[in-house]
Amino acid sequence: MSVTNELNPNVKILMGPGPSDVHPLVLKAMATPLIGHLDPQFIEIMDNVMEMLRKLFRTKNQLTFAVSATGSAGMETCFANLLEPGDEALVCVHGVFGNRMSDIVERCGAKLIRLDAPWGEPIDPSAVKKALESCNPKLVAIVHAETSTGVRQPLEDISQITHDAGALFLVDTVTSLGGIDVRVDDWEIDAVYSGTQKCISAPPGLSPVSFSPAAVEVMEKRKTKVQSWYLDLSMVRKYWAGAKRAYHHTAPISMMYALHEALRLVLEEGLEARFARHKRNHELLRDGLENMGFEYIPAPEFCLPMLNAVKIPHGFDDAEVRGRLLDEYNIEIGGGLGDFAGKAWRIGLMGCSSTLNHVNMLLSALRHIMKK
Amino acid sequence: MSVTNELNPNVKILMGPGPSDVHPLVLKAMATPLIGHLDPQFIEIMDNVMEMLRKLFRTKNQLTFAVSATGSAGMETCFANLLEPGDEALVCVHGVFGNRMSDIVERCGAKLIRLDAPWGEPIDPSAVKKALESCNPKLVAIVHAETSTGVRQPLEDISQITHDAGALFLVDTVTSLGGIDVRVDDWEIDAVYSGTQKCISAPPGLSPVSFSPAAVEVMEKRKTKVQSWYLDLSMVRKYWAGAKRAYHHTAPISMMYALHEALRLVLEEGLEARFARHKRNHELLRDGLENMGFEYIPAPEFCLPMLNAVKIPHGFDDAEVRGRLLDEYNIEIGGGLGDFAGKAWRIGLMGCSSTLNHVNMLLSALRHIMKK
Repeated sequence: MSVTNELNPNVKILMGPGPSDVHPLVLKAMATPLIGHLDPQFIEIMDNVMEMLRKLFRTKNQLTFAVSATGSAGMETCFANLLEPGDEALVCVHGVFGNRMSDIVERCGAKLIRLDAPWGEPIDPSAVKKALESCNPKLVAIVHAETSTGVRQPLEDISQITHDAGALFLVDTVTSLGGIDVRVDDWEIDAVYSGTQKCISAPPGLSPVSFSPAAVEVMEKRKTKVQSWYLDLSMVRKYWAGAKRAYHHTAPISMMYALHEALRLVLEEGLEARFARHKRNHELLRDGLENMGFEYIPAPEFCLPMLNAVKIPHGFDDAEVRGRLLDEYNIEIGGGLGDFAGKAWRIGLMGCSSTLNHVNMLLSALRHIMKK
Repeated sequence: MSVTNELNPNVKILMGPGPSDVHPLVLKAMATPLIGHLDPQFIEIMDNVMEMLRKLFRTKNQLTFAVSATGSAGMETCFANLLEPGDEALVCVHGVFGNRMSDIVERCGAKLIRLDAPWGEPIDPSAVKKALESCNPKLVAIVHAETSTGVRQPLEDISQITHDAGALFLVDTVTSLGGIDVRVDDWEIDAVYSGTQKCISAPPGLSPVSFSPAAVEVMEKRKTKVQSWYLDLSMVRKYWAGAKRAYHHTAPISMMYALHEALRLVLEEGLEARFARHKRNHELLRDGLENMGFEYIPAPEFCLPMLNAVKIPHGFDDAEVRGRLLDEYNIEIGGGLGDFAGKAWRIGLMGCSSTLNHVNMLLSALRHIMKK
């Protein structure tokens, strides 16, 4: 009856903005037969995932777990649980994901105050300070690693300014977590979300999140229900961390297996060693690309090691080069998003995709394709 | 640095309300290396998934795909995209999942009209007809297979009554799809959602949905934005079915591999053969349980084959028996939910867990545990 063939995609080299290549042990973990979402052994796996995520986020936050959907749902979880209709939120926008935050703030019925910076540059702390003089937001939100521009956003000064103004500090670490340092407690981040498919090198499907005691208090004092049932942490929390581990929804078991194994491998490598590896391979790629005449979009001190955003050199067609990379070399890199569509390439060196061989494969392929 | 051991859960026999046992080919599919969520090969996999889901739902609906989260998110997707603040919705409640629908309706800012029936019984079409005399809802929602009570809800009369009143008909088929017939077009269902971890026997993590042209028209005429960014079909649609397949969020690649393979196996078996198998094993289990003195909760003509809800016999402790089944036999069955907590067991015979051997294993184990 079926006319569909067994799944058999080509093996690809994933050097785009995510997903990244996944470690064979993580792939293998997903082939583990399932157990129930309320099985004591599964509860133990959830506890392990929470404990390992705390190490990655460098936090003692009790409410640290993985939302049962991809990174954008983690973003929505943070805003929808912290904001109520009528609240104000200051969102720093310097790329696609700041835009997305702004959209979500408005859908929460909150008043959006936008602080824009040019794409490719970080947000200036003094601009945040100035913006806070004329508003009184419940939270200030910013992206740590803008996947659309390759910019690393320094966070410590803005955190200080935010807390001085009495607001919560909400940070997107989708692309940074596991590749550069994310210090939730030291930097006093109140709400943070990430994804599994970037530097953690698990498949997409879960969103690690963590909330400070101050953020939890804000949630507990809500006057209105969270607009999303699926993402309502007043219920989700009871499943992840309640005394009774009450059923909320059926957890994505196999994805949790994958995240468990991926986190185990991250911690086995060690965070410092992992960050050094990401930095080293970024520098190798940068040297190679700059030798070919490529120009990075962000200034060197703000470049992300795991997401290399470069201008497409004059005379080359975006779709043609990326198409040849994919078809002839099985290598995926990312095109530009939003303002950068057709103007930039985004080359990922994330997690298991951050290796010397990945750098060399891509540079060789680009040299062949782009020689005139 | 890591103190966490490699994942190694016991192999369990899954006979609860889901997840069900997953076919080895589906487990193997999840171990396939990832490709990008915008890779032409992945787009082809999405197209195949849509086409196979149409066969399962027996529909020609173009907007038939899988939401990137578990079944409850599918539920929320249907309500959040169809309802706007101020709309009325009639929700039929005869178990936990009707309750959940009601909660979501209110979170959408819509006016909830509840029609309750006793748990363990279906909703009477004449009660729906009567309720519709005093309200004018945008939609009528009902659960086809109440996982909390084991009741199969006949749908055709209620669909007719709903359409006569000019409302859309929204149906939960989380537990029914792939195990009993779900005829979306014949029964004129306008919005339907399901889960992957029941009779489709893939892991939890995706929610198949389908929308009729009338439902799509209602979405297109919305005056307000969908409150959830993640579930907003005006954007999600463009990724699944738009001419340009525009990026919305990073799809859960490995889960899509799993669903692809699971659907392929469902169609290879054939829907009629699969339904007959579910019925046959249900009858075997029923004979065995009734011989032991068990009593089913729903009347025979309304019993679901894949979810056998029985009263816990007098003199037996819920937690103790289920604990021994899990610890000594590695068999998971479900306890009662809500009103039925401590009073009922829910025995799943879903997808790959609907076999003669599953029935025999459980009956043997219960006979040993429950002999006085």
